[in-house]
Amino acid sequence: MNDKKYAANTIFELTQTKYFTFIPSEKDYKLACGKQLPLITIAYETYGKLNSDKNNAILICHALTGDAHVAGFTNNEDKKPGWWDTLVGAGKAFDTEKYFIICSNVLGSCYGSTGPASINPETNQIYAMIFPVVTIKDMVRCQKYLIEHLGVNKLLSVVGGSMGGMQVLQWAIEYPELLYSAIPIATTSKLTAQNIAFNEVGRQAIVSDPNWQNGNYHGISIPTSGLSIARMIAHITYLSDISMRNKFGRNLQYNENLNYDFSTEFQVESYLHYQGDIFVKRFDANTYLYLTKAMDYFDLSIDYGTLNNAFKNAKNSFLIVSFSSDWLFPPYQSFDIVKALKANNVPVSYCEISSNYGHDAFLLEFEQLSDLIDNFLNNLRKKIV
Amino acid sequence: MNDKKYAANTIFELTQTKYFTFIPSEKDYKLACGKQLPLITIAYETYGKLNSDKNNAILICHALTGDAHVAGFTNNEDKKPGWWDTLVGAGKAFDTEKYFIICSNVLGSCYGSTGPASINPETNQIYAMIFPVVTIKDMVRCQKYLIEHLGVNKLLSVVGGSMGGMQVLQWAIEYPELLYSAIPIATTSKLTAQNIAFNEVGRQAIVSDPNWQNGNYHGISIPTSGLSIARMIAHITYLSDISMRNKFGRNLQYNENLNYDFSTEFQVESYLHYQGDIFVKRFDANTYLYLTKAMDYFDLSIDYGTLNNAFKNAKNSFLIVSFSSDWLFPPYQSFDIVKALKANNVPVSYCEISSNYGHDAFLLEFEQLSDLIDNFLNNLRKKIV
Repeated sequence: MNDKKYAANTIFELTQTKYFTFIPSEKDYKLACGKQLPLITIAYETYGKLNSDKNNAILICHALTGDAHVAGFTNNEDKKPGWWDTLVGAGKAFDTEKYFIICSNVLGSCYGSTGPASINPETNQIYAMIFPVVTIKDMVRCQKYLIEHLGVNKLLSVVGGSMGGMQVLQWAIEYPELLYSAIPIATTSKLTAQNIAFNEVGRQAIVSDPNWQNGNYHGISIPTSGLSIARMIAHITYLSDISMRNKFGRNLQYNENLNYDFSTEFQVESYLHYQGDIFVKRFDANTYLYLTKAMDYFDLSIDYGTLNNAFKNAKNSFLIVSFSSDWLFPPYQSFDIVKALKANNVPVSYCEISSNYGHDAFLLEFEQLSDLIDNFLNNLRKKIV
Repeated sequence: MNDKKYAANTIFELTQTKYFTFIPSEKDYKLACGKQLPLITIAYETYGKLNSDKNNAILICHALTGDAHVAGFTNNEDKKPGWWDTLVGAGKAFDTEKYFIICSNVLGSCYGSTGPASINPETNQIYAMIFPVVTIKDMVRCQKYLIEHLGVNKLLSVVGGSMGGMQVLQWAIEYPELLYSAIPIATTSKLTAQNIAFNEVGRQAIVSDPNWQNGNYHGISIPTSGLSIARMIAHITYLSDISMRNKFGRNLQYNENLNYDFSTEFQVESYLHYQGDIFVKRFDANTYLYLTKAMDYFDLSIDYGTLNNAFKNAKNSFLIVSFSSDWLFPPYQSFDIVKALKANNVPVSYCEISSNYGHDAFLLEFEQLSDLIDNFLNNLRKKIV
């Protein structure tokens, strides 16, 4: 392993979040639900430089609770670099010396883009549950406006894992002429009943918390216990049976002997509580409702009848990656996409990476991902140039 | 399929729940936690007749939220028969014309046996969270006293699925001289980190409900939303990805079109809500805390170092059954038990039934279970007689 290659980016200057704001009515842009927002702001970061042909740009799409800060540090006190820092930087798979990397916070999120935690300019109040329901399609449309704003002619690639992968797939069928390639990772063309069920239980935990107050909790109280429970449930689905066994097993947190009470006793319980506790400090409860709903609604085939039909106009090269122990979006769901692409003679490479890390593997198996992406992008560039 | 064989038992007289009460101190019986209850009552039902040799008795152990009412009807208004009526009755696998069937409600439960919802005779108040933590071992010990009370010399078999299977395994290593055979179904020798994690999130949902009030909610309020969320989480783990896909897919509950709001929209959401709603009417929240904790603590090897050692004194014949799509207690966990028994030269038959029903298969795949159990018991009787 080339340790240096994956080391945190220190050669960057500090990264900076920028904001792109537009008026949807000027673009005649209505959301999938039929409503229109008065104003949309999209927070984004960029790394590297757009070349003169304006075709070296790569758009990275984040997952459910991610943000635009994909690599590097935003200030000198940052303890952790961006969420995919192992893959984005000079000499890395998404090489910032070759590519112009763009990562934006999705519409509906709470990290700088317009969402339920934003101020409604028409009322000067926080939107909360007045915010319209948004979809993956809506997120992608905003990304398209951002790309245009940045002067990109055609994206070299759109890439992302989990909910990020859903955005990638939506890009590929919605704007095939605007991208050379698509890299959906650990994702699915539609949520299953089991996926929807887990999301719904998480939402129920939030709305059952008396502090939620129909979403009007800002400045009053925070539905911490509900949001924490939602995160704990989700977190179990991000790991795997075997990764939890390896990491925690039946290890006790403090004592050698059982307490015979209801204190936090097993290490896995303590870990889950910790995950819940840190999450409520960084994420907005209403936003969690909206973004899980956007995922539930995601069904690539819905406007096309079948998945095969959905890819009828796809012109891009695909690299599809799944992970063997991912039971949230298992390999068979990626393979369904591969089959639909094959049926349309769309060039597709598929790799199921053997990993114990479950769904989280898309953030953790960076060495294997790096090699795959590196090769795929190098081959792609040869074809394009 | 012989439909008649699995039809609801109508030939029974109405079944009746009986109660066996004993004073633990008279039996020098302390719980695993070291505490002693002043009085223990065990609710039970029996079907068929004990023979003159007193060796045709079969003990059936129920799962987490089950009760002693395993077959038949308790009154003429009952809409559903007992929880394993397909397997227990005249001419069925557990043939009430041949066997004396016993099913008791576990210690710590809320269906007639002593548990956190019972009255503490020392205070005349409901125990609530004052109730001591009980274990699978404690439950089994109470069952042993019940068996003695009923005059049974040696059980022909102990059988149960899920938490019932844990009791079966505990019987086999604790009282090998008191049973001829053991039939653990869809179970495990110890809960994994993932199992504990799901239980803990369910418990957190309950204790976070303001109506829970440290367990002192009786007669005041019921933590319905917390208990309902706990049940919904658990219910997802009882089904399988494929069974949920087959049953619900992405079907909508009412409209053809998406609502773009947070109402109950997908059928799977409605189903989960329904499961939560009916559960809170029939189960006690504190009891849910205690019984999931008993499961978390279950580790057959803990007093023996290894699972192989745990079965050193096992003298019984085993029939072990798992289900291919059960991801709560997957087949590999049953197979670990098979290997440990083999290592001790204990006779064991193992069957992994191919089923889409997930963990719930132990209640639903009664035809295949019936054949397996029927053959196993008939062979066993030939050896014994």
